[in-house]
Order: sequence, then structure tokens, then C-alpha cells
Amino acid sequence: MIVKCTVAYDGQNYAGWQKQINALGIQTIIEEALEKIHKRKTDVVASGRTDAKVHALGQVFHFEADEAIEPSRYVPALNALLPLDIRILDAQAMPEDFHARFSCKSKRYMYIATYDRYDPFAYHYKGIIYQKLDMDAMVKGACYLIGEHDFTSFSNGRIDPRKPRVRNIKAITMEEKGKDIYFIFDGNGFLRYQVRMMVQTLIEVGRHSIAPEKVKEILDQRDKEACRYNAPAQGLYLVEVRY
Amino acid sequence: MIVKCTVAYDGQNYAGWQKQINALGIQTIIEEALEKIHKRKTDVVASGRTDAKVHALGQVFHFEADEAIEPSRYVPALNALLPLDIRILDAQAMPEDFHARFSCKSKRYMYIATYDRYDPFAYHYKGIIYQKLDMDAMVKGACYLIGEHDFTSFSNGRIDPRKPRVRNIKAITMEEKGKDIYFIFDGNGFLRYQVRMMVQTLIEVGRHSIAPEKVKEILDQRDKEACRYNAPAQGLYLVEVRY
Repeated sequence: MIVKCTVAYDGQNYAGWQKQINALGIQTIIEEALEKIHKRKTDVVASGRTDAKVHALGQVFHFEADEAIEPSRYVPALNALLPLDIRILDAQAMPEDFHARFSCKSKRYMYIATYDRYDPFAYHYKGIIYQKLDMDAMVKGACYLIGEHDFTSFSNGRIDPRKPRVRNIKAITMEEKGKDIYFIFDGNGFLRYQVRMMVQTLIEVGRHSIAPEKVKEILDQRDKEACRYNAPAQGLYLVEVRY
Repeated sequence: MIVKCTVAYDGQNYAGWQKQINALGIQTIIEEALEKIHKRKTDVVASGRTDAKVHALGQVFHFEADEAIEPSRYVPALNALLPLDIRILDAQAMPEDFHARFSCKSKRYMYIATYDRYDPFAYHYKGIIYQKLDMDAMVKGACYLIGEHDFTSFSNGRIDPRKPRVRNIKAITMEEKGKDIYFIFDGNGFLRYQVRMMVQTLIEVGRHSIAPEKVKEILDQRDKEACRYNAPAQGLYLVEVRY
């Protein structure tokens, strides 16, 4: 039986979803909890990785469950074993062909940036902005990113020539709330670092360090050296994975 | 010249205000930053200590400043040297007899408890409650704490017979907001652990594990063994120090 779980985590103390050398990954912690429940090694597969310090409001993973366990019971069973900054929100049985990564239709990411340099609690949860941003210029810049594009320029990962780097961004919204700016990205998938690199590029537009048209220029280069901007990980949240 | 500073901090990664063996205290970090600015060792004196993991929205400390530095300049100078989870909010010159601890007239503490067991971000910032609380019973219990009392029963620190353990609590408010409960305590001062022990005692009243009258009974014992309840440190905030 395949069980699909939704998990929220505060990423600040973790090396990201995947295990890193000498650093704890969230995946490992969940697999260890499942091993205690199942009394056997249990691999979990997520919708995708999140990097060190990145948070999740609704990451999704699947695993081969124990037939004897009613699927929804995985919520309290896992939460009892997991640290309090990793919380299972939902667990349900799925058809055998469900796959957390391959079945994923779209994802939503959020980035929170703030002008508030005096909030000590922002440190682990928001990127700090030091200059007033021109939101109109940022909207102009963001328009170039919407739609289907090869986003090689907005990725910093190793390039595997067999893997496509075309993604479709369906919507970008940017909203000022008090001293914070919320960026929301909806797309069918995102390359490694893509959201953070897009956010910092838009911030550079907002502070007039580059023109909005420069976003298109960077995109068109399809070169992973084209964009040098990367927003800090702590402001990024994986909000939702849709199937 | 005496300078009074207001500082906010996220206490989760610190051993509290004061240095502990093998653990970093916020005081030490601020003194090291001042030493860099002054090129001499500079002691700071706070309104009182906060314990490990406790947060501050408005802790106050004073120090012997450098006459050559315009007092308000300590805000950017210190913030440039301090980690981002310790933020100086204000700095001003005070009369020579100002003392952050001895001149203090009253303090406000806040405690945030939450019913939300599925919020991974609550872990470092709120105490988690597992049963629905009876707020009416808690208000009854809290009434016994208001006014001038010997709070020995609500302290866990070492008892120094020379030091008075009478404090005056002017107001306690408890308010439900969504899934959270905010406790606010105003008083002329608080003993070590006093707020956390009062909060957990009131929570015990709220979940009907003890009667509201038991609060008075514990208080009247004036015995530091009388109260076994202590709410987790991460939900506590020093909000304001008044002079």
C-alpha cells in the first residue's frame, strides 16, 4: 500500500530534505521514525528536495506502508516520534502508481522578504531588504519569467544534459503586507535554486540595480553563469504540491 | 556617560542573557561588540537576566559609553557587529545615576501558548497545550496571584535569605487569539522562573488538574518545593522594562 504524507517543517536547523555529509536531512529523520513504526527499513520519496534552511508548509512524500496500519494513523504515530519542528499534517492511501515526484502536477513556493531590520525573529524566516523596492519595476521584470521557458540561467545546480530545464511558471504574485513583501510562484516545477535566484533578480530590479528588461536578457542566455543573484534560503517556503 | 539600550532577541540559540559554562550568553556577545567599538572592555548591566531560550522584545541594559560617540549612533554600530537574532532598537544618554536593574519600576512579560500541534514554527516560540483549557477557571486562579505577595513558592532559584521575595503583580491578562493563548504579566519585578511557573500552574487549573483555589494554597506555602509546574522557556518573552 502506498501512503502519501503531507509534512510541514521549520528548516532552520536542517541540512535540507536530503541528507548531507555530516548534516541531518529531514528525509533521514522521517525514515528513521518509519523504521521504528514498521520494524523494517522504509524509504520515502518526496516531491523534490528543499535546500538547507528552506521551510515547508506542505511538502509531500510517499512510502510503502504497512497494510496493518490504518493510513490516517501515520499522522499521530509519526508526530509522536518526530521532533516538534517537523509535523505530519496528513496521511492517506493512494493508488499503487502514485509517485510523490513523478505524479506532481504543480508546486507553489513563497518567499518572504522584509524591510524590518530590527526584528530578531526575521533572521531564520525572512530575507532582509536594505533599500525600498520599486514594485512596479519588479512586476515588469516578473512578466518575462511567466510562461514556458528554459530556466538554465536561473539554476545553479549541476547540469545534466539528459534532464530538461524547461519549466512553466503559471503565475507570480508580489504583495506588500506591512514591512514584508510576499512573493508567490506557481509552476509545474522548479530547478534547483530557481525560486531564490528569480527572487533576488527581481529584488535587484526593484532597487534599480538592473533594468526590468535585464531579466529577459538573463533568461535568454540559457547559461548557468548568467545570473549571479541568489536570495537567502531562510525566506523560502514550499507551500503546496498539487497532483 | 551612561547609555541605556533597548534590545530585542530571539533566544532560541542562546544560553540566556548571562554566560553559562560552555554556552553563549547574549550579554557576552554584546560586550564583545562594545569592546570592538570602544577598544576597551565594557561591562553591560541588564534589567535582569532572561533564561536560556527565552526571548526579548524590549530588554534594557546600560553601560559606560564613550563621550566621543553620539549615543544614538550605538544603534547602527552595534547592529552591524551583532548577529541578526540580536537587534538593538534604541540607545540614549541617561543621567549618571541611571541603573538598568536598580532604576527599573516595572516589567511586562508575555507567554504564548498554543493548541496548534501541527505548526512546526511554534516549536521555538510557543508552549504547546494538549487539552482545551477552561479560561474562566484560569481567571479565578490568576486573581490569587495579583497584588503584593511573597512569591517564594513560584521560584526555583537558589534562595538567598537576604534577598526579599515579595513582588507586586499589578495585572494579569489572558486572551485567546485563534489557536493561541496570550498571557500578559505586569509587575514591579519577577523572581527567577516565576512567570513560567505561574503560567504552567494556571494551565493546570485550566485543564482541571487542580482547582483555582490551589493557586492560593501554593502561594501561601512560601516554599520553593510547593509548585512543581514550569512552562517551557520558548514561549516566554520579556516585552518591556519601565523606568
